[in-house]
Amino acid sequence: MSHDCVFCKIVKGEIPATRLYEDPDVLAFMDIGPVVKGHALVIPKAHHNPMMDAPTEILQKLITVVQRIAKAQMKGLQADGINISQANGSVAGQMVPHIHFHVIPRFTAEGIHRNWSPKQYDSPQELESIARQIRQAIQ
Amino acid sequence: MSHDCVFCKIVKGEIPATRLYEDPDVLAFMDIGPVVKGHALVIPKAHHNPMMDAPTEILQKLITVVQRIAKAQMKGLQADGINISQANGSVAGQMVPHIHFHVIPRFTAEGIHRNWSPKQYDSPQELESIARQIRQAIQ
Repeated sequence: MSHDCVFCKIVKGEIPATRLYEDPDVLAFMDIGPVVKGHALVIPKAHHNPMMDAPTEILQKLITVVQRIAKAQMKGLQADGINISQANGSVAGQMVPHIHFHVIPRFTAEGIHRNWSPKQYDSPQELESIARQIRQAIQ
Repeated sequence: MSHDCVFCKIVKGEIPATRLYEDPDVLAFMDIGPVVKGHALVIPKAHHNPMMDAPTEILQKLITVVQRIAKAQMKGLQADGINISQANGSVAGQMVPHIHFHVIPRFTAEGIHRNWSPKQYDSPQELESIARQIRQAIQ
């Protein structure tokens, strides 16, 4: 528990939230600043951050609830698609430093959402060089 | 296996890819159209789509590899943050209909990335009504 963490306060009930689901380890609730209406958040009840530091067991429980919420958005809201998004670090756009998965329903009527600007590697050598740096750091 | 699926062809080695990691169930490789250089993809070797239909066990294996790749990007590339993104359905921007998690390193030098446009609910009643639709569909 972190005393200054907004999501810890939501877990403890000190800040209100519209809850969707909870179990001993995981809480799902509505994002009050939705990218699309129906946008939900899935968080661990314990304070963990970033995702890279989460215990495997917690991460596996989180993704299972993410899947259940996504299915429920498809069925309950008749969504046409789902985006899952999870940010780590302010440079990645993370606002609350407590792991959270965004589960965002998408609707054909709202058009296709693609906030995506693919780039290119300068050369196959650059691609391979960067890949090697990642590969060698895998633990 | 789907015969027309680009990612199944990568799994089988029929289309080349710069592999980062693999085990019997999961493959991680470099995205050749990176949002940021170092951008990786994590996929199940078996053809599953969308995420909502994946067996829980596969999903848990995928998120564990996502975490390992993210850690490796932080360490190996000295990344400052990580975005995880996963799309389901063309309306969500999914291009290849085979489950894939994007693992995207973020660097302070490239500025803060926020492709995010929060909205508001028209009323607390609207929020609660939409929450109820999701809640009732949770299985």
